[in-house]
Amino acid sequence: MTTTASNVSATTASVDFFAKHQDILKTATDALTSRNHVSPFPEIPSGRIYGESAAADGQSAFESYLNSTFDTGQPCAEGEIGDEQSPFGLPLKIRYPKADVDKLLHAAQAAMGSWRDADVDVRTGVCLEILHRLNKRSFELAHSVMHTTGQGFMMAFQAGGPHAQDRGLEALAFAHVAMTRFPGEVRWEKRISKTDTESFTKTQRIVPRGVAVIVACSTFPTWNTYPAFFANLATGNAVVVKPHPGAILPLAITIRIAREVIAEAGFDPNLVTLAPDDEASPIAKELVTRSEVKIVDYTGSTSFGKWIEENAKQAVVFTEKAGVNCVILDSVENIKRVAGNLAFSMCLYSGQMCTSPQNIFVPRDGIKAGNETMSFDDVAAAIVSAVDKLLSDPKMACEILGAIQGEQTLRRIEKAGESARVLRPSSVIGHPTHPDARVRSPLILATSSAETDVFMQELFGPIVCFVATKDTSESIELATRCARETGSITGLVHTTNADVERQATDALTCCGVPVCVNLTGQKLVNHTAAFSDFHVSGLNPSGNATICDTAFVANRFRVVQCCRPA
Amino acid sequence: MTTTASNVSATTASVDFFAKHQDILKTATDALTSRNHVSPFPEIPSGRIYGESAAADGQSAFESYLNSTFDTGQPCAEGEIGDEQSPFGLPLKIRYPKADVDKLLHAAQAAMGSWRDADVDVRTGVCLEILHRLNKRSFELAHSVMHTTGQGFMMAFQAGGPHAQDRGLEALAFAHVAMTRFPGEVRWEKRISKTDTESFTKTQRIVPRGVAVIVACSTFPTWNTYPAFFANLATGNAVVVKPHPGAILPLAITIRIAREVIAEAGFDPNLVTLAPDDEASPIAKELVTRSEVKIVDYTGSTSFGKWIEENAKQAVVFTEKAGVNCVILDSVENIKRVAGNLAFSMCLYSGQMCTSPQNIFVPRDGIKAGNETMSFDDVAAAIVSAVDKLLSDPKMACEILGAIQGEQTLRRIEKAGESARVLRPSSVIGHPTHPDARVRSPLILATSSAETDVFMQELFGPIVCFVATKDTSESIELATRCARETGSITGLVHTTNADVERQATDALTCCGVPVCVNLTGQKLVNHTAAFSDFHVSGLNPSGNATICDTAFVANRFRVVQCCRPA
Repeated sequence: MTTTASNVSATTASVDFFAKHQDILKTATDALTSRNHVSPFPEIPSGRIYGESAAADGQSAFESYLNSTFDTGQPCAEGEIGDEQSPFGLPLKIRYPKADVDKLLHAAQAAMGSWRDADVDVRTGVCLEILHRLNKRSFELAHSVMHTTGQGFMMAFQAGGPHAQDRGLEALAFAHVAMTRFPGEVRWEKRISKTDTESFTKTQRIVPRGVAVIVACSTFPTWNTYPAFFANLATGNAVVVKPHPGAILPLAITIRIAREVIAEAGFDPNLVTLAPDDEASPIAKELVTRSEVKIVDYTGSTSFGKWIEENAKQAVVFTEKAGVNCVILDSVENIKRVAGNLAFSMCLYSGQMCTSPQNIFVPRDGIKAGNETMSFDDVAAAIVSAVDKLLSDPKMACEILGAIQGEQTLRRIEKAGESARVLRPSSVIGHPTHPDARVRSPLILATSSAETDVFMQELFGPIVCFVATKDTSESIELATRCARETGSITGLVHTTNADVERQATDALTCCGVPVCVNLTGQKLVNHTAAFSDFHVSGLNPSGNATICDTAFVANRFRVVQCCRPA
Repeated sequence: MTTTASNVSATTASVDFFAKHQDILKTATDALTSRNHVSPFPEIPSGRIYGESAAADGQSAFESYLNSTFDTGQPCAEGEIGDEQSPFGLPLKIRYPKADVDKLLHAAQAAMGSWRDADVDVRTGVCLEILHRLNKRSFELAHSVMHTTGQGFMMAFQAGGPHAQDRGLEALAFAHVAMTRFPGEVRWEKRISKTDTESFTKTQRIVPRGVAVIVACSTFPTWNTYPAFFANLATGNAVVVKPHPGAILPLAITIRIAREVIAEAGFDPNLVTLAPDDEASPIAKELVTRSEVKIVDYTGSTSFGKWIEENAKQAVVFTEKAGVNCVILDSVENIKRVAGNLAFSMCLYSGQMCTSPQNIFVPRDGIKAGNETMSFDDVAAAIVSAVDKLLSDPKMACEILGAIQGEQTLRRIEKAGESARVLRPSSVIGHPTHPDARVRSPLILATSSAETDVFMQELFGPIVCFVATKDTSESIELATRCARETGSITGLVHTTNADVERQATDALTCCGVPVCVNLTGQKLVNHTAAFSDFHVSGLNPSGNATICDTAFVANRFRVVQCCRPA
């Protein structure tokens, strides 16, 4: 137990989860400051790490959910909902008890009392145990993420499992640091005259805001939810998770695990609840504007994110919306290595990552590649050919591309193909084991800087646009305009010129776009690492928060004081 | 210079203000965590501390502003405004160049470039030097605060000078800690195979949000403005200060000093500008909703604070609004000492502090006082008599009461006197040196818990209401209801019963009300000390922010990254 900012009437959990997991918290807390590479939850889906039966157990656990009703054990309405569709074509038929917003919010409020009064370390320990159990269930979570989001298995395991857990742990560590910043009790003395001093005992108490709602997305249901989930829970708030109707299962499993741990620790499991809905009767607008709800976290489309920012006035709102990510190609040493890296970035999960590149700005007169000058068309052709090569083996192609999460993305591909010159058409790729999988190769377009209607908008999914610019200055100008007007979450610059590098990185970072420079190896601009990368800046329309930094946690609770004569 | 989170192209200031003031920053930073009593800027208006001529110099500097136009040296419109009225009746006749919102915002944006790019320590050093010079001008600021707010000289000196400077320093220290939390550059290595590691250099840059606007109030123009002013400036934002039309001078002097230091340090003085307006053509609504404005800080009435929270959607908004502060009298050891302390709290600056108590809940059947039971009326009479005693010497009375800042408060006193039983009428008190001073003794009322219309609303000014309750449970219930519905910034509980103390402090702190218990000496519930008290919680309608904590600074900038192969 720390002796810092804690609450007086601490409830002692039956198991000391904090002591059990102190080491991992220490690793995480150190990494917040060092910013070195750490991944406390192992990212390799190996039997040697997770246990020899883990893969099979995970698969059968996942299969046990199919064709049945998922029981969360929480207060609910009459009736069931649930119509998740596997992008790989696997019939799911999972039903969930319908959420009753009144009941859920009432139960969440009722559950908060003893949780709020518990010691910071007790709450943190419970969160650490939840993460620990989620980690052990990473295979089960991987299948559930894969068959709702369309991610290939390896990505579903890593991003949906250990990397999501890393992010939850990062937010938890930030919250623990923020809550233990101030001493729980201080003797405060002030000299009031030459001979007299007045002494007071000031106690500091962490007071949570209230009920927190998380509105999750369809593509990274766990990865985008865990930071807010653990930041809220650790700081004493109750959490209601509203999953996307297309990706409920990974969060239902998460909530069930969390509820088990919370109950074992002697608290009311209704501290965390699931509020599933469907397209026919969405509940997000009601949930996020209810007076009981004091915090809202959202990941998803820009339009609904903006609606929440403008309408959930009673709450503190954290959003991660969408954006248009740009690549500036100015000059390269080795076009093959650049093309290989870029092709992977373009193909990974079919451009359905909020970090995927969309626009590639190339001067219309070409670029310097090594000692040669390459024309615009040759640059584009080199990258198209790298995509061809990457996708040449259908099995590997399907693992990299995954499947298309939503039907509307297929229509978007079709429409985009009519808007500009097609360098590489999007084609159907047969999946080796899932014949009904919705797998498409990326659509690669070429246009010019004047055609802002084509590229100055989000083209979510496997759509990439080469844009011929006057020169690199115009490329920088357009990339920063994208950031300012449509929002950007990542930026990539390729240049061998130090001045250009400085200009481009200065311009983009000032618009709140984190920039990668000259990536040619395995690291992709799409990758965001917990404990190292500041994901989304909140400085452009792609969102209003960074996940994760101090600002992400510090506003979820307050320190409130009692002052008594000593 | 720290080696932590800083910007690459640091501008070196001509004078190393950071080195000059490192010690005071260290004192402040240590105090953020220890929460011990510190007041780095001396609160005694003594010639031995401030220089033998400081008092006279301050007075003549103040007098030099009267009957003239105050030159801020900044871009402005044609024409002048200015109609500040001294609540002490001194003719001021100070004119200010009219603000041109377009020009100010344009100049503020233009000034930000090199400031944003400067090293964190350079910016912090400039802020420390501004504070240092403000401190040296504390007498001049005291007169300007006194003759705009109506505070007595001693309070104007302390709250308007050193205590305001302490608060600015506290916010500055929080900002410095938050900005230097992450290293400026990290080598990030990830093992990608058994034999290979990829290495990257990741640089972290502090990026400010943009132009910040501060809308100041009429009663504590410097005390309530400095935290946001220094938090914004240190984190790289430009600051436009919109003073209350009734209290421009203290902020005009502040801005002029800040501009001088900024220019000496080699930056554009338009980083900080004054935007004065008048009642006839107010500019606050336009200012806070302009797209260039990314941060708004506000102190003032609840209604306009709410308007800003709901309408300044393009900005991060921090508000300190008003509230109804409650006192729960349950039982006391020594009624005289309690009454003496409460009388001072009620009289100090005529209840015009956001921390002043308004409602005093007393059980209708009386309270235990020592070994006796005192009736409701006897309790009220004891406190009324303590007020009588405190105000018996007119000179001392005027120093404690100060003068009434706004005409509308006089009307409020009149109206309130008709709403309930008057225990002590408000009367005019003649000021010994300022015959036209607007000095009034407090109006003390008595009502019952059923009359919520009377007391469940803010009665700003020298109006105090004794409320007879069923019992202390009802007192607690009403005090928490005030907190939840009207907002509360402070709470005071008097009880000799440990259970009651726990119940009352639990209930109030959970509503975000910091509570003082059993104050009988010189410390008043009104007092808020920098580096110790968390002023406003943001957990009830009295505001959405705490001034000052980590959340107050962390959202004013972002860390944005560049990642390059090492």
